Order: sequence, then structure tokens, then C-alpha cells
Amino acid sequence: MSLVKMFNSYRSKMNDRILEQNHKVTNRFFSLDNQTYRDGALDSRTKEMLGLIASYVLRCDDCIKYHLGKCHEVGVTSDEIFDILAVGNVVGGSICIPHMRRAVEYWDELMQNT
Amino acid sequence: MSLVKMFNSYRSKMNDRILEQNHKVTNRFFSLDNQTYRDGALDSRTKEMLGLIASYVLRCDDCIKYHLGKCHEVGVTSDEIFDILAVGNVVGGSICIPHMRRAVEYWDELMQNT
Amino acid sequence: MSLVKMFNSYRSKMNDRILEQNHKVTNRFFSLDNQTYRDGALDSRTKEMLGLIASYVLRCDDCIKYHLGKCHEVGVTSDEIFDILAVGNVVGGSICIPHMRRAVEYWDELMQNT
Amino acid sequence: MSLVKMFNSYRSKMNDRILEQNHKVTNRFFSLDNQTYRDGALDSRTKEMLGLIASYVLRCDDCIKYHLGKCHEVGVTSDEIFDILAVGNVVGGSICIPHMRRAVEYWDELMQNT
Amino acid sequence: MSLVKMFNSYRSKMNDRILEQNHKVTNRFFSLDNQTYRDGALDSRTKEMLGLIASYVLRCDDCIKYHLGKCHEVGVTSDEIFDILAVGNVVGGSICIPHMRRAVEYWDELMQNT
Amino acid sequence: MSLVKMFNSYRSKMNDRILEQNHKVTNRFFSLDNQTYRDGALDSRTKEMLGLIASYVLRCDDCIKYHLGKCHEVGVTSDEIFDILAVGNVVGGSICIPHMRRAVEYWDELMQNT
Repeated sequence: MSLVKMFNSYRSKMNDRILEQNHKVTNRFFSLDNQTYRDGALDSRTKEMLGLIASYVLRCDDCIKYHLGKCHEVGVTSDEIFDILAVGNVVGGSICIPHMRRAVEYWDELMQNT
Repeated sequence: MSLVKMFNSYRSKMNDRILEQNHKVTNRFFSLDNQTYRDGALDSRTKEMLGLIASYVLRCDDCIKYHLGKCHEVGVTSDEIFDILAVGNVVGGSICIPHMRRAVEYWDELMQNT
Repeated sequence: MSLVKMFNSYRSKMNDRILEQNHKVTNRFFSLDNQTYRDGALDSRTKEMLGLIASYVLRCDDCIKYHLGKCHEVGVTSDEIFDILAVGNVVGGSICIPHMRRAVEYWDELMQNT
Repeated sequence: MSLVKMFNSYRSKMNDRILEQNHKVTNRFFSLDNQTYRDGALDSRTKEMLGLIASYVLRCDDCIKYHLGKCHEVGVTSDEIFDILAVGNVVGGSICIPHMRRAVEYWDELMQNT
Repeated sequence: MSLVKMFNSYRSKMNDRILEQNHKVTNRFFSLDNQTYRDGALDSRTKEMLGLIASYVLRCDDCIKYHLGKCHEVGVTSDEIFDILAVGNVVGGSICIPHMRRAVEYWDELMQNT
Repeated sequence: MSLVKMFNSYRSKMNDRILEQNHKVTNRFFSLDNQTYRDGALDSRTKEMLGLIASYVLRCDDCIKYHLGKCHEVGVTSDEIFDILAVGNVVGGSICIPHMRRAVEYWDELMQNT
């Protein structure tokens, strides 16, 4: 199974499991998380780029994959992705580079499926 | 002395001290840091917003102040700043909120001097 | 002015400033943050201890101060605080110790005002 | 092999390997780590919950699994686990959510083996 | 395939992919990264030990593997590696121990291939 | 009062306060912390450099000051300090630079008092 499908399928399955627990603070947090990236003073496209770099410097592969997927949906280009990761590397250091390898591999797969 | 002046003056003084040491890797790193935020696939304005949120979720007050200053220079609005910090809070959690207090205080001072 | 008063006064002032911006995601996040520590499967007292150690290992002095204040309100004892910080030191390492110094200083002030 | 068995077996094997090196500071650190969670001003049950949230906001899957195992042993309930993770999400942000997915999957497996 | 070969092969493949994008800031960052560990006031051997502990306390398995490989090349001994990891554990806490397990497993494989 | 005196005096005062609480795990942790930097496979001088870079990439000003003081005592040179900080910047990113400013200011004061 592709990286993209594997990520999306596990994420969906476990999000469903978590939400059906009906834990109030948790469900409100998930709902707030969704609301955050909607058009506001900044449009959704810019916010997804912000979500990507935040995930990148905090070095969470799954969060990076999620925001790469959203960036792909809203039409961020490969050159823009490399600009984002470059800012991330300079701010966050070489400790981020292993995440860059996995991010680029995932991005390339997203682009091949277009 | 204002927060903005205090930050800029200490930053300049110590950056000068560091650069005059002529440590090769250090000076190349400082130069690369400057180059990173220039117009590329993404314009400088977007990159400064990326630099701001990266600094925010990594919780470095001085880096936040620096990028708030640059965001102010390139015309980012207050509503956009609040959008950036809101994405930062959701990604990075309530642990970021004390930095939000100081960021908003600093931003308000930047806006008053306009 | 005492450490406790200084912290509470700056926190209140800036929280007011932030909330009056009426930024929707931000205000929902602040409201969710409050809701989180209310009695649930775990009581509020236990949740404040969880909030304290989470703030401690993430090394945010202001968050530590906030939860120390709440722990004091709900009757956590000094011996319990030292147990929490000890778990924090072992999980988070000696990098937390400077925060322990400031936490104990703040806690001692809270206890003197009782 | 189940997630729980896989985790415990690798952990045991490598801990044995490390301890037989007889590195003094390392062995003292491992011993201190064990001592930390024993009954004190706070009982072992509370300390395991503290260890869990500390591991969660620092985002270490193996540490989360270890403390989930211990929480299960000392009778922490599913509702309490969800309360702990909810405090963790609010303090630590959405960057913790991928760890929540894996934590809940692991916890569900622990509960099925009861 | 061995852990060492698997790591090196994926790292090479993805570094090649990244560098051929010809993203200026990225390529300069990779080049600066290489330059950093060359003999200077401190020799390359000491710098690799510094790179190892920095990677260890920041808890990046791939960075740890990379610097273990370099430490092995420049003749760092097993006893020295355990000293480095012990300093890392005390500074960074028990949250680092799962990385120690994987680091020791990788180091043992490097030593067997000598 | 100088930066060095201010740091040492607050550190001593609060360490005394903490140790006289006679909290067993805490006192064992402080004692283990001291033992860690003694001569072993690596000498104390190298270990202090490791402690410095670990503190630097984890971005704790007080820990940086402490290890700068120890590095000064064991004869680490200014050129070596700049090499350590340069490795730290490349691994940990520009987010470390504000700590470099404060580290160099503190180091310069240590050197003036020699």
C-alpha cells in the first residue's frame, strides 16, 4: 500500500475510534483543530503552509504528512514546499533533515497521484 | 527604553560581537539565515509569517520579536498576526500562551510607533 | 511587588487584551483550556497536578507558575509538589532544574501568603 | 506478535544489554528511574499518571507505551486515560494527536488482554 | 538488510533527490552541515561526539545513527559512547532512554562489522 | 552585580533550599548529576563540552551559563567555545541564536575575570 493510503487509512480509523469515546474536551479539541485552518484574515492555503512548517520544526512526521496532503489539495507547488522546508531547516536546524527526507518522499508520491 | 528598542539594541550589539570573532561556520550560518527570507517561490512576506510561526511553536521570545518586527516592516496586519498565533496555539498547545502575551504586547508597541 | 502578584497582574492584563481582539479560534482555545481542568473522570486536583508536570517538562516558567497557583488553591501539599517535580526531573532531565529553582521560590511565596 | 509483547520484549532485551555494560552513571540512572514511581507523598498510581502525561507532551511513543502498561497494572480506567490525554492535548497541542492515535490503539490492546 | 545498510541507503537516496532539486538555501545548508564537523579549534573526533549528544538530547533516531556511524569511523570507543549517552540521559532525562536502546543496538551492529 | 555572580548566587541559594527539603529522589538526582561529569572513559573537560552543547540545543540559558562556567574552569578556550556553539547552531537551528548572544556575553565576562 502506498505511503499516502497507509497514512490516511490509519489516521481515519483511529480518529473514528477516538471520537466515538465521546470525551468532551477531546472532541472539542478535534473540532477546534478543523476550524483553525478555514479562511480568515489569512486564507486556508496560507494557513496550511503555516501548519506544515509548525509541524516540521516540531518534528512530527504524521503531522507533516497531514499538512503535505492538505497543501497538495489547495495547490501549493513543489517549489513552494521546498521554500517552506528550507525556512524550517534554518530555524529548526539539521535535526529536521531526516524529516525532510520523509517529507519529500511523501510529497513526491502525492505529486505522482495527481 | 521601549521593548522594541531594547530588543534591537541588544541584538545588534551581540551580533556584531559574534561576527567579529570571524568564526567561519558561524558567519556562514548568519549569512544563510539572512538569505533564507528573501523572495523565492514564496515571497518575503509569506516567509516572514513562516519564520514567525516556527519561532512561536518552538517558543523563543527573541525569535518571535525579531519576526514580528519583520512582519511589521512587510505590512502584515494585526488580524493576520492573530491568525498566525491561533494556528500556533492549536498546533503547539497552551504552553505557547505565555509567549502570545509577550508577542501581543510587543506587536502593540510596534503598531503604536507606526 | 511579589512574584505571585507580578505574574497574576501581567497575565490578567494581557489575557484581557487578547480576548478583546475577539479572534474566534483564540477565544475558543482559551475557553477550552479552562474547561479542561474541571472535574471529570479525574478530579480537578489531579488534573492540576497533570497540568503542572506537563508545564514543567515542557519548561515554561509562566505555565509552571500558573499551575502552582492552582495546585495551591486546591490544597496540594509541599511534599506532593516535590514528588511532582522529582518525576519531572527524572523524565525531563537536569535541563529542568533551573525551572525547579524558580518553581520552589514561587511555591514558597505562595505558602507564605496562606 | 501483539504491540504490547513486541514493545516489552524489545525493551527487556535492550535494557539487559545496556545494564550488563556496567556503566556506573547509566545503571544508577536506571535504578533512580525505578525508585521515582514508588509510593511517596503521592502514591504510585498518581505518579504513573504523571509519568504518562510527561511522556505524552514530550511525545515519546515508547515512554507512553511503558506508562500505559503501568497505568493498566495499577488500575487506571479508560475514562481516566482519556482525561490525561485531553490535558496533554490542550497543553501540548495538536502535534500530540498522532501519539494519541498510537496510545489509544495500545491501550485498547492492553484492555483486551485483561 | 542490516540496520546500518538500511539507514545509509535510504539516507543517500533521499539526499540525492533533495540536492537535485537545486534549491539554493537547502543546498547551502547541506554544504554548511558538512563543513561544520571538519577539524577546527576542536578536531573532527570531538565534534562528532558533540553532534551525537546534540542529536541524542533532541531525540532524533536518524541523526543519532548518522553520528554513531561517524563516531565509529573516527575511532570513538564503546566506553566513550556510553559516557556520551550517560551525559545525555542526565541532561535530557529518561525520555531519552528508548533512543538509547536503539542507539546501542545500532552501535553493536557497527562494532560487529569492524 | 555581574552576570556571573548573579547566576551563581541565585543557583546556590535555591539549590540549598531544594536539598534541605530532603526529598530522596531529588537529592539522589542532584548527586547523580554531579557524578556524571567526573573523569571516566571521557575526561571531565570533554564531558563539560558535551554538557554545554546539550544545554545549548535544548535552549536553557541557566544550564548554558553553568556549563560555560565549568568549561572556563577546566580551560576550554574561546575558539573551542565558538566551535561548540557553531555545531549547536547547525544541529539546533537559528532558534538557538538568541541563546548564543547571551552565552557569548556571559563567556566574555568569565574571560575578563580571569
